Formats: sequence, structure tokens, C-alpha cells
Amino acid sequence: MNAQIIEIDRHPAPVKRRGRAQRAMDRANVTPLRFHTRAIPAYHLLGEVALTALEDQADWILEHVGMEFRGDDVALDLFAQAGAKVEGQRVRFERGLARQLCATAPEQFALHARDPLNTVTLGGDHIVLMPGYGSPFVSDLDRGRRYATLEDFENFVKLAYMSPHLHHSGGTVCEPTDVPVIKRHLDMVSAHLTLSTKPFMGGVTSPQRARDSIDMARIVFGSDFVANNAVMQGNINVNSPMVFDDTMSGALRVYAEANQCVCVSPAIFGGAMGPVTPAAMAAQTLAEAMVGIALTQLVRPGCPVVFGSFHSTMNLRTGALTFGMPEANLVTMALSQLGRRLGVPVRSGGGQITSSNAPDGQAMQDSTNAMWATMLSGCHQVWHAAGWLEGGLTMSYEKFIMDLENCGAFLRLFQSMIVNDETLSRDSYLEAGPGQNFLSTAHTMRHFAAANYESLLPDAGPYETWKDNGSKTAAQRANGRWKEMLASYVQPPMEQATQQALAEFVAQRKASMHDEWY
Amino acid sequence: MNAQIIEIDRHPAPVKRRGRAQRAMDRANVTPLRFHTRAIPAYHLLGEVALTALEDQADWILEHVGMEFRGDDVALDLFAQAGAKVEGQRVRFERGLARQLCATAPEQFALHARDPLNTVTLGGDHIVLMPGYGSPFVSDLDRGRRYATLEDFENFVKLAYMSPHLHHSGGTVCEPTDVPVIKRHLDMVSAHLTLSTKPFMGGVTSPQRARDSIDMARIVFGSDFVANNAVMQGNINVNSPMVFDDTMSGALRVYAEANQCVCVSPAIFGGAMGPVTPAAMAAQTLAEAMVGIALTQLVRPGCPVVFGSFHSTMNLRTGALTFGMPEANLVTMALSQLGRRLGVPVRSGGGQITSSNAPDGQAMQDSTNAMWATMLSGCHQVWHAAGWLEGGLTMSYEKFIMDLENCGAFLRLFQSMIVNDETLSRDSYLEAGPGQNFLSTAHTMRHFAAANYESLLPDAGPYETWKDNGSKTAAQRANGRWKEMLASYVQPPMEQATQQALAEFVAQRKASMHDEWY
Repeated sequence: MNAQIIEIDRHPAPVKRRGRAQRAMDRANVTPLRFHTRAIPAYHLLGEVALTALEDQADWILEHVGMEFRGDDVALDLFAQAGAKVEGQRVRFERGLARQLCATAPEQFALHARDPLNTVTLGGDHIVLMPGYGSPFVSDLDRGRRYATLEDFENFVKLAYMSPHLHHSGGTVCEPTDVPVIKRHLDMVSAHLTLSTKPFMGGVTSPQRARDSIDMARIVFGSDFVANNAVMQGNINVNSPMVFDDTMSGALRVYAEANQCVCVSPAIFGGAMGPVTPAAMAAQTLAEAMVGIALTQLVRPGCPVVFGSFHSTMNLRTGALTFGMPEANLVTMALSQLGRRLGVPVRSGGGQITSSNAPDGQAMQDSTNAMWATMLSGCHQVWHAAGWLEGGLTMSYEKFIMDLENCGAFLRLFQSMIVNDETLSRDSYLEAGPGQNFLSTAHTMRHFAAANYESLLPDAGPYETWKDNGSKTAAQRANGRWKEMLASYVQPPMEQATQQALAEFVAQRKASMHDEWY
Repeated sequence: MNAQIIEIDRHPAPVKRRGRAQRAMDRANVTPLRFHTRAIPAYHLLGEVALTALEDQADWILEHVGMEFRGDDVALDLFAQAGAKVEGQRVRFERGLARQLCATAPEQFALHARDPLNTVTLGGDHIVLMPGYGSPFVSDLDRGRRYATLEDFENFVKLAYMSPHLHHSGGTVCEPTDVPVIKRHLDMVSAHLTLSTKPFMGGVTSPQRARDSIDMARIVFGSDFVANNAVMQGNINVNSPMVFDDTMSGALRVYAEANQCVCVSPAIFGGAMGPVTPAAMAAQTLAEAMVGIALTQLVRPGCPVVFGSFHSTMNLRTGALTFGMPEANLVTMALSQLGRRLGVPVRSGGGQITSSNAPDGQAMQDSTNAMWATMLSGCHQVWHAAGWLEGGLTMSYEKFIMDLENCGAFLRLFQSMIVNDETLSRDSYLEAGPGQNFLSTAHTMRHFAAANYESLLPDAGPYETWKDNGSKTAAQRANGRWKEMLASYVQPPMEQATQQALAEFVAQRKASMHDEWY
């Protein structure tokens, strides 16, 4: 881990496609991803005794309480055949059975992108950052808070595509509320596929929408490629506590049958969907996630999965959800340990999350607290790494920029301290002795341009300059930056025939539907 | 570390004084310190190979370059007698000599407070948080940024005294610029001793001011007690690179002779006072600090010391200092490892620091980033844990409140995840099964009041409420809180005779001086 020169780890890509992709990036003024590995150790909050106690508790929950699969007889049959005890819709597992059923899930796998340079690895020392997910509102300093539209959705896909600090385009980055619910997944997947070349997530709000999403990926990647490689993810939320509804378990089975990546995310607000104590939240999350992962493996052994989580504390006097608080951060850290012990990639329930209503000091304090717990925990994928505001109700354009700034800082931190002859620089001390200035040493000259992480946010400058320029807060300075980025966006190229086939598929599917808003 | 119930560790205090102190706190509406230990593991950024390389580099610097002591023949003589190679003002150390001279410094010791309930331990798993240090300006949202006055200084001493999340009153919390420089230390030490009962730092800007500060402590604690116990700290800045000036080495010797705690703080801005690379900054800090600590031990073996640091990155294009950046955070983490290996308590060069000009999103992003690196590193004392703005030029009343909020969150995080039968709560799952709500389980009822850390900042509420209340940012909400705190401050009692003796000392010393402003 230490005293080493970090080599940037790149997935091999065919020379021809790499050349074309690189030219496209040059045209689009897109900075390629700089870092996607962690060269610093993961933080181990808990020791063996505590971890074993949490795993034991998860087993106890599954043995004595079990999980309900509501309205999904296929899932119930699969569990019964695998030796679980099925009574009605309740499934109970003998101690160790759920974990055993997860054993065929891969510890590490590639999630392929349309541009092979953007293909990521889930697992190991790799890290995948992606934007927020699921907000019905957006906000910016000019127009305030409003319902999100497809234009907003596309804007965030473009911004994520252009950033060197996000590895993934996300899923429902915000809800395109101007599109009928029944058709949204078509426009969202289309935007991910055509406006970006990074990995993405498909629809999950019904099994049919999951199938549509995968069909669209087949048009772009080719059916054979999709049959053998993960090119997308579907997020399966557990209806915590301990319930899978048929929408979610149905969509799970569609993704698993197609060998696409399933992320199983229990969603526990301590005191509501589970006990209020962090230990219980962690153990229950493990129990619920193991059952979802087990189902993927019963559908298709070896199907790529991610152990997800989403958890939050509440102000138990007012019922308001809180984010970035120490109790939730402890859960975040413990879950990465538990997920690594289960042997599957972990999507952290942290990210840059906050309950603040504005991109202010509280927003960044909450977000940065949650993000440290997330990033140091050794998780592999981070949702909500950019834009999230107001408990996830809103994607903020300005916070998106401020969060990107921090993503870049974390990815730089992940490269660790390089200790070698060049960085220790004995030559500097022979050139500049006690009381002398190092600004013009040969070593400083060699390193100054790339020595330090440079902020994305326009520099505030010293106090007087800052005041003369209107005392702009970070959010106000971020306001100009996202506009500049959108103004300079260039769409990445796609084969004409592919583009046309995709558009035809969307048109045909839309024509077959009524404009339903649920 | 794990699966345990944390017991609050309190220093024993005589029953009589504890009772009196408790009554005083009740009268003053002061919440006692809740937490002052770390029950989570320290984070180990670097492994043995890298740490040894950094230590080897520090030895190389001291052998081949050495340190200059400018104008302090006493210090030069002490080093010569100890076997160092002294040529003019330059002192060089054979490999290992400086570390060997540090060996008599204690690994852990008590820093006594006027109220024994507030006595802290430096070292081990103890953590001591304190306010910012050295700002010439203060700011608040009502009056803007202005030169700090003695009233401001006293206000921050009162706020730190009232907070359950700061363990220490600090030193020059801000510069009382309305008091002549030559007299400032008298008013500052007087404020720490009379307005607070927490540990504090004394004057260091001349040996005489150091002596005055210690004399004042003797009046309050008694000369015998001071001779045998550390009751204050003096901060000795190294004039980096590799220079001690006679003001600092003179003040260092005064504190060491009196057996009071010396904190030795190299101050390195990478690329100016040392090479630009984090590895070099860490090694040079170690070299400089070891020499200062060695001097304390030559003056008085066993004198309590703290391995301090202050380091920052720069924007090497503009020359502007930056804080909270990943390179500096790596140095912060490495230095705590190096300090623990040296066997002395570590004062981290981090804290809640930022270059932002306003208590905005950038301020809290920088501060929280630096604070995580600081707190997880396993350091023992954290300066600049509250209030710091604008690269340390300004103490902000609102940021002080927002930072306190985060100090409390960190101290809660430090108590770790408690994993036991009560927190795992099997009874909850037998009471509320799949799909049911845990809000009214017996377990939730037992725990809800104390389950989660509660913010100091007035709650923003949901979006609509927040908007109706004027869309107040965190800084605006903090504005009311510090005023409420100051309005409810009650001065802790002090024996009439002590109070009088202290006032007489100050009056006498002031009468002996002209109003010099340097």
C-alpha cells in the first residue's frame, strides 16, 4: 500500500475503440477519469467479536422472523427448492443458509460502459462514484426549487459525463416529472445511453420497465455482449422491514435472468423500519440484503450483484429524517466490513447526503461527514456522491458542483502519500537551508503544477478581492460553473444505425402505451 | 475496542471540590463535558516501510542540514553538552540522537484545570478539543468582519466554557487588538482563569510574557501545585524551515523550567517553508519538532510536551494558502502516526480549518475534511476545532457554533457502535415483524430520547416550514444561538482573595509597562 508509485489502472480496451473514444473526448472537452482505485487502507471500525455478533444477529432474524415475498410465487418456489422454510409468503432460513446461497456471487466484476475507457470494476480496491438518485425536485440559485423535468435529467447526465470525478452516470438522477410515469424509463435510459458513455442504471419500477431497459442496452451493446457481460445495474429496494414486494422481486428476477447487475438495497430509518440502535440497523440490513442476493443467485448462479444499503437516523422528537449524523456513519462503516466479509461488492448507504434545504454550511458539513465514513469504509460504489439536498427530495445544480469538488479531493486522497526519494527530496534541503525559501528550488519547479489537487470552484481570493467581487458564497460561485459546463457540452458520437434503432424502439414502446402517471 | 459498553472516564476529583464545581455548573447553566476518549481505532494511513522512511529522512535532515538557534546561547550550550555538533548557530545531530533526547518526555499526562472536573489527559485514547488560535479579526453576521477586541476574546472564552464539546479554553483565541501588545497576555490569561474553568494556554511572545502567565497560574493554583503539575500550555512555533528564534526558544525554556506543558509546532506551507510534497512536509515536521522537544528535556527532563504541527498547501499559481485539501490531510494522518511512535502526545495540525471568507459551504467542506483526517488519525489534541475562517485570519461567531455542532458529532462517533443484546434488540423483532413499524416498540420507547446525537443548530424543518421562516441558512440559524449562549452565561465562582491577588498582579504589571504595540 505504501511507499509506492501509484500506477493508473486502466481496463484494457481494443486499440481501435480506444482511439475513437479518445478523439470523441477531445472533441467534447471532457476530462478523462483520473482515479478509480483506492491505494489507502480501508478503515476497520469493528473487530472480529462485534462483526461476528452482527452476523449472528442477521442469521437469528432470518431463522426466527424471516422475510416476506408478497405476491411473487416464483420467488417463493425458488426459496423452497433451495431448502428455505416457506409458510405462506414468509420465508425463513436455517442459520447460515442465506449466506451459503450468496456464495456464487462474484467478488469482483466489470460493469461495461459504451466507451470502454469508462468501463469500471466493482469490487477489490476499485471505487465507483455516481450522482444522486430519485429526487422529484431540482433547484438552482436562479430559478429556485421546482419539479424536475426531462431537461433537468439530461442536464445532470451531461454534467456527470463531463466530470473527471464521477465514474457512473447514475439511474433516476432526478424524476423527469413532465414525462408520464409509464414512459419515463425509456427517456431516462435513452439519455444515459446517448448523452453519456459512462455506466448507468436501468428502470426497476415494474418488470416490464426492467425488460425495456435491458432491450435498449442490447441495441447499443449487442445481445451477445449483454448475455455475457454486465452493462447496467438495477436497484432493488427492500421494502424494509423484511418485505420484498412483487414489483421489486419481479424486477430483480428480470435483471438476474439477463445476467445484469442487481443492487439489493435495504432502506432502514432507525426507529421506523427497524430498531433505533446502529447495531440493529447494521444487522438487519445484512439480513435483508443477503436474502435479495440469494434470490439473484437462485435465478442465475454467478449473476453479478452489489450489497446495497440505505439508512438514516431520525429526529425522534419531530420525526424528521437526518443525514450525515454519527450514528448513521457508524452503520455505514460497519456495513462495508460486513459486505466485504460476505464476499460481494458493497454500495455504501452514505454518499454526500444531507437534510439541509439549501447548499449551505449544514449541507456540506452533513455531506462531508457522511462521505468520509463512506469512502474510508472500503466500499466499492457510492450513490448520492453529487447533488443530493433536502433528504434526497432535491437535486441542486450548485451542490452538484460543490460535491464534485469533494469527489475529486477524495479520489486524490485515495492515491495516498507517496514516499520515495523524489518526494522526500533531499536535493531541496541541500539547495535551500534553514530560514530559506523553497519556492524556487528545482524540486518545487518540477512539481508545482501537479503537486496539489485543484478545486473546481472558482477561487474566492483574499478577503478584500472577494468582497470587491460581491462576497460570493461557494454556492454562488458554483452557479457559474455548471452553466459553463453545460454550455461547452458536446454529445459523444454514436453509430447512426444504433442511434436510429434506439429511437425507433423508444417510439414504438411509447406508441403502445397510454400516458399513465403511476 | 468493540462490543463493549463505554464507561465515561472521569478524573478523580476531591469530593468537596467536585460538589462545589457541580453546583457552580448548575448555576451557570453549563453542560458538563460528555466525552473525552476515543473508543474507535485510530486510522493507520501508512505502513511500517513508509513510516521508517519518513523517520530516516528526519534523521538525515538533522544530521546533514541541522537546525539554527538564533540568538540563544543557552540553548546552543545545552545541545553541545548533550552531544550535538554545534557550529555557530547551527546544531546538527547524529542519527538517532534527537529521538533519544526526547525519550524522557512523558507519553501521557494530566493538564489540570481550575475545576478538577475539567482536567484533561493528554495522550493515550484521550482527546482534547479547543478553539481556534491567533486570529486578528472576528466576524458575525450582524457587524461583519472587524478587528478583534478584548470583548470578543472574552466572548469566545465564555462560549468555549459553556460548550460540552470543547475540553480546553485555548490560548490567543483572537487577538485583543484594543489592548497594547505588551499587555495583552495579562488580559488574556486573566480571562481564561476567571471566565472559564477549563485548561488554557499562556503567553509566549516573549520570555517575560511567559513568566507573567505562569506567575498568574501560580496565584490561582498555588506555587507548589504548579511546580509539580502541568496547569497550562505554551505554544512554541518553529520558524520553519529549521530555525528557532530566541523569542520562541526563550519562551520554551521558561515553560520547561516551570515544568509546564510545551507544545512544539513546526509551521510548514509546502513549497515555501519546505518542499511541496506531503512526504517531505511530514518528515521535516518530525525533524523540527524532535529538536524542540529535545530542548525541553535538556532544560528539564520529564517536562510534559506535545508534538505539534501546522501545515498547509498552497495554490502554487496564486500563492494563496489552502486548507482542508487532500495533500495536507495526508500529512495530518501521517504525523499522528509519527508522533505516537515518538511516544509523546500529538497536537494535530488539522482541526476545522478553511480558507473560505464566509461560513458557507466551502468553509464547512474544508473544515469537515480536515477534521476527519485529524480525528481519525489518533491525535490527542486538536486546536482550531471551532471558529476558524479565512485561513485563520478571522474567528467567526457563527462558524464557532457550526463547528461546535460537528465537535459534538465527532465525540459521539468516537464512542463507537455498541454491539450487545440491548442494542441488537431481538425483542423488537418479536414485537414488530415484517412490514410493521418500530416507532412504538418498547425498545424504541426506551431509547428514543438518547439514541441519536442532537444538533446544536436550530432545526431547519421541512422545506415549506423553512421557506416560511425566511429560508435561513445554517449560518443564519447559528447567529441566534451564540447570542442566546452569551446571554445565559454565568461566571464561575472564584475565591475572593484569589480574584483580588490576580487583579493586583495584572494592575501592577501593567503599571510597570509603557503601552507598546509590538
